[in-house]
Amino acid sequence: MVDTPRRQQIDDVASALFRDRGYAATSVRDIAHALHIQGPSLYAHVASKEDVLWSIVTRAADRFNAEVGPIAASEAPAPVKLREMIRAHVDVVTSAQRDAAVFLHEWRFLSDDRRTQMAARRDAYEALFRHAIAEGVAAGTFESVDPRLTAMAILSALNGIATWYSPEGPLSPAQIANQHADLFLRSLTCDPPRRPSA
Amino acid sequence: MVDTPRRQQIDDVASALFRDRGYAATSVRDIAHALHIQGPSLYAHVASKEDVLWSIVTRAADRFNAEVGPIAASEAPAPVKLREMIRAHVDVVTSAQRDAAVFLHEWRFLSDDRRTQMAARRDAYEALFRHAIAEGVAAGTFESVDPRLTAMAILSALNGIATWYSPEGPLSPAQIANQHADLFLRSLTCDPPRRPSA
Repeated sequence: MVDTPRRQQIDDVASALFRDRGYAATSVRDIAHALHIQGPSLYAHVASKEDVLWSIVTRAADRFNAEVGPIAASEAPAPVKLREMIRAHVDVVTSAQRDAAVFLHEWRFLSDDRRTQMAARRDAYEALFRHAIAEGVAAGTFESVDPRLTAMAILSALNGIATWYSPEGPLSPAQIANQHADLFLRSLTCDPPRRPSA
Repeated sequence: MVDTPRRQQIDDVASALFRDRGYAATSVRDIAHALHIQGPSLYAHVASKEDVLWSIVTRAADRFNAEVGPIAASEAPAPVKLREMIRAHVDVVTSAQRDAAVFLHEWRFLSDDRRTQMAARRDAYEALFRHAIAEGVAAGTFESVDPRLTAMAILSALNGIATWYSPEGPLSPAQIANQHADLFLRSLTCDPPRRPSA
């Protein structure tokens, strides 16, 4: 179970299969086949299919935290902080797209104990966004929105990128990040008086 | 295959199973078991597990179109229209939550032909939102955003509600819809001049 290049290769191949077919419809034999090895050889590296899922989901969670955590912990004003957090989150979603998709959609297939652990990590991560929004509301730089609902709306929009982004598409990750940041920051920092929005 | 109460009961039970366990991990036997009937009896009503998925996904797509389509086709100004479309979409997501979750996450398990058909329906539905946004941009009532990216951001945020909404939660469907509509309409209709959003 040591982290060798082979181990990482297994995660990479499995991440693509889990994303394309779903975790439940992918067998250990499928993973081995994609690596051009025999099923039993795969068990020299991993104990179970669920271990592979756990490894992929964990490295995705680690990556989100490594990129967004330091920004969230900074002393930047809320609008600057939230914009940078959005940029960092989009960077992970677009550069680790397969892992992000597995992290978002397949994590529910983890065993109970691991699913509980991962649910706690996800909640802690969402809290980084809730707190950044709450800081802006408290400072009066943001509209008085519900930080929980607003954080969920922002993260759902950003996570949706994992399902439609293509490196061959017309928009670069930086453009996608900026347009999402503009969309949400414009809403949160809109100066009153404004016209009624219907 | 006629639409009897039994047929609808099968869809309801299967929708819950597909949502909770995923389509691939649910067997026809599981569906029969949940209905307290034998597997073979189920085949008197449905030809295959995929037929059940198709039925659920189709009724969800029908519901979204029935609720949102007439609003999209109306002559209302873009801000009014988009707000009402958001309300209608959230109404379906919260009142047909299981079907919506299956529609959003399990449709990729359809056979190639049906998946292609459903992809076209999904695109036509997304186009209702793209067009409403483009109308507002063209009329000058909306900021000059990218209608495609903005429609995806809005729909991803609204679809995320299917994963976190609980009828026992603190917010009613109407409150959730209004807060999402406020969030996006404030961004789209924000009056210049405004302060730079960082």
